Amino acid sequence: MNIVYLDNAATTKPDAYIVSNAVRLTEEIFFNPSALYRGGMAAKKMIAEARDKIERLYFGKKVIFTSCGSESDNTAIFSFAKRGNIVTTKAEHSAVYNCCNALKQKGFDVRFASLESGGAVNVDDLTSLVDENTTLVSVVHVVNETGAINDIEAIAAAVKKINDKVIFHSDGVQAFGKISSKLKNVDLYSVSAHKIGGLKGTGALIYNEKLRFQPYVFGGGQEEGLRSGTENVLGIKVFADCAEKYNDNLSEYFDMACECKKAFINALDGKYFKMISPENASPYVVSFSAVGLRGQVVQAMADDEGYIIGTGSACSSKNPHSRIISSFENDKNVLDGVLRVSFSPETKCEDVVSAAKTLNAIAEKLNYKIAPKRRA
Amino acid sequence: MNIVYLDNAATTKPDAYIVSNAVRLTEEIFFNPSALYRGGMAAKKMIAEARDKIERLYFGKKVIFTSCGSESDNTAIFSFAKRGNIVTTKAEHSAVYNCCNALKQKGFDVRFASLESGGAVNVDDLTSLVDENTTLVSVVHVVNETGAINDIEAIAAAVKKINDKVIFHSDGVQAFGKISSKLKNVDLYSVSAHKIGGLKGTGALIYNEKLRFQPYVFGGGQEEGLRSGTENVLGIKVFADCAEKYNDNLSEYFDMACECKKAFINALDGKYFKMISPENASPYVVSFSAVGLRGQVVQAMADDEGYIIGTGSACSSKNPHSRIISSFENDKNVLDGVLRVSFSPETKCEDVVSAAKTLNAIAEKLNYKIAPKRRA
Repeated sequence: MNIVYLDNAATTKPDAYIVSNAVRLTEEIFFNPSALYRGGMAAKKMIAEARDKIERLYFGKKVIFTSCGSESDNTAIFSFAKRGNIVTTKAEHSAVYNCCNALKQKGFDVRFASLESGGAVNVDDLTSLVDENTTLVSVVHVVNETGAINDIEAIAAAVKKINDKVIFHSDGVQAFGKISSKLKNVDLYSVSAHKIGGLKGTGALIYNEKLRFQPYVFGGGQEEGLRSGTENVLGIKVFADCAEKYNDNLSEYFDMACECKKAFINALDGKYFKMISPENASPYVVSFSAVGLRGQVVQAMADDEGYIIGTGSACSSKNPHSRIISSFENDKNVLDGVLRVSFSPETKCEDVVSAAKTLNAIAEKLNYKIAPKRRA
Repeated sequence: MNIVYLDNAATTKPDAYIVSNAVRLTEEIFFNPSALYRGGMAAKKMIAEARDKIERLYFGKKVIFTSCGSESDNTAIFSFAKRGNIVTTKAEHSAVYNCCNALKQKGFDVRFASLESGGAVNVDDLTSLVDENTTLVSVVHVVNETGAINDIEAIAAAVKKINDKVIFHSDGVQAFGKISSKLKNVDLYSVSAHKIGGLKGTGALIYNEKLRFQPYVFGGGQEEGLRSGTENVLGIKVFADCAEKYNDNLSEYFDMACECKKAFINALDGKYFKMISPENASPYVVSFSAVGLRGQVVQAMADDEGYIIGTGSACSSKNPHSRIISSFENDKNVLDGVLRVSFSPETKCEDVVSAAKTLNAIAEKLNYKIAPKRRA
């Protein structure tokens, strides 16, 4: 059976060419990058070149490599959360959300801004929560479940107009390489390799070069003392090459994703499905609901037909309803049926259309079955 | 030039067969292990099987995968350090040592036990530091710089006889798969993949199944809520396969390392070199000094001849003298000349002998050059 993979927001298929090249290279240069002999220095150079590939995308920013987007979020939040208050949003990925909740349990004043329909933060509400005692603001760039885009540069500017001492963090995991930003006014930005063709187990924290902070992982002083532990040279090399590829082709890939999104939405039957993603969302993510059906049942049936789609965030798949979507959507029938398709530059438009048609057929079948119950 | 790699305590050459097999497998099953479709569940199963391969080595222990030994150490120390006091040793890897120092700076009472000559902890000193207020004791299993072995099971028993509420942690990075232990009385044990043929970027924390602790990395609740972040499936699969290989062949590999160690020490010229490792150290690590010479100069000259050797821990290569060795050795001439060779099951005895002969020749050459100065 031909498999159509449409859950790229959960993880992308690793770029086979980039991975095999990096495996070959790191098989040869397998040395510890801290070692002072030639081989160690060659490994160190590989990391320096990788770092440079990401740093050159931004002005005045530096990069430390971490083990994942979640670690980057944890590092940012726990290093900069100070007494006073912390402002974030209800649409954060659990890596930010659960750090904030851990701080709340320790007695920190954590404030969660409400969302617009579709998942973007309500900026008026957010700025109303910021005051002279705010130390940290964290706003996700692209909401992983709905693709809603927050204009983080404008939000950071508005926040700093109220309090210029605020440290502004953004989780950019779903945006990096896909939605352009120069990160103006943004002090810290978390990114991940495996959402852009890289390997699971590598992330980075991009930070304002003027920031000083404590490491989150202490040890041998790697990453200029900011993240200890022997560097994951393979993962870092793959990450940087993927970052380069995605960023070099950002607008071309963006346009391709737009076409896929348009084709998918056009092919989806409005009788059975309701859009959740806002219109101006990232073209890479389409959140919608098979109203009145169970998303997981539709997902399983699509899986049987060779179409792999998501049901909201893979990372929070244990909760009955999406925490994020239920914060702006009350209809239980909509929440039950939440589904997500998400694209990569590998995604083919015709596959997306046949996925939509398959979903239509599944919804028709299920609605026919449950119709008597629904009418009752 | 034929390269002889003798810095396996810094990192091992990844096992090409295990890696290529895992790359192939995870290229196919690249899905997010949290996803609920078939592919996601297959990825989840791969992790469960990997976890099982490590858990079955111990009775009553569980495993969470982390990004490295350092993260495992940080998780153990920061999760269990409570007010009262913390007892550790002067021979800890910087991942433990610097966590303890960070706690000290926060006002914690941290006590460092002194060392025997060769780097093993002075057990009498250690137990004298433990009292009814001790919450955590951390003792490295095999000292990375000298190979000295601490009998962690006996030490843990002695500690718990004084205070049975103590949580006992050990950094087992240099011991895992090499020096046998059932971890009796040991509550937490940090291990790393890239010291046994695995990839950099994967570690694990082995813990007593009765322990309850907070995660160090918060987020989507992976690893039963104890370590969030999308799992590094490739790294985990490779790690578990290497762990199985090393543990299945533990005594055979141990005997091979003993032969290498014996051959190396026999071939090394006692006129120029002094042993630092204790006699009963791990056979995988030989620490010695080119007395009166600079270790890094000898290292660089050996590198030129195709022999890759270490100068103490790669992780602390920025310090002038080894923190660990200088805590039991005062002679500046010995400290200047510290070198380390470390073996893997791939190491060939004849290569080790020719490495020793090359070192003899280098030392002779350098001693001839600096002889007038030394006589002065």
